[in-house]
Amino acid sequence: MIVTCVFVHVKAEHVSDFIAASRGNHQGSVVEEGNLRFDVLQSTDDPTRFLLYEVYTTPEAAARHKATAHYLEWRAAVADWMATPRHGETYRVVYPADVSRW
Amino acid sequence: MIVTCVFVHVKAEHVSDFIAASRGNHQGSVVEEGNLRFDVLQSTDDPTRFLLYEVYTTPEAAARHKATAHYLEWRAAVADWMATPRHGETYRVVYPADVSRW
Repeated sequence: MIVTCVFVHVKAEHVSDFIAASRGNHQGSVVEEGNLRFDVLQSTDDPTRFLLYEVYTTPEAAARHKATAHYLEWRAAVADWMATPRHGETYRVVYPADVSRW
Repeated sequence: MIVTCVFVHVKAEHVSDFIAASRGNHQGSVVEEGNLRFDVLQSTDDPTRFLLYEVYTTPEAAARHKATAHYLEWRAAVADWMATPRHGETYRVVYPADVSRW
């Protein structure tokens, strides 16, 4: 299993747009083969900051996400709404180690 | 629902100790009332960096975690193993909005 945390900083005037555009990416991603989670979170301290918590069974499944129509559509839609470039951090799962717990 | 991401930087010589100590905290936390997830992740780029992804149904349930025996035991065990102070960031859930999807 592999987890990618994507930290996103959105221009204040596009927060609602970002939430709306991310719905399709979430819905498409959670039905991808190998997807375990695709959580979209908004900071309670700063509503312009979001975290995408993307969990896949394999690195290959995570890579395939970036070729999907819903991802490419989202990427294009949000491109001009970033306040600063987003960045991803990758993690391996320590616990829960059992894939059935995801 | 409320998500707390705790970013942890462990001294290199205590990485294995930290993983071992976090097992009990994970196992105790996932059976707390109101807990939805308690994921323990290790950075693929830097094995001394960990992320705890703690999801609760309410802020009250998240607060109660800090009074549990497994949390207090973990906190005491890891206190001397931190390379830098750990910090938490709190998020609200955008998607999936349905608690049954957690």
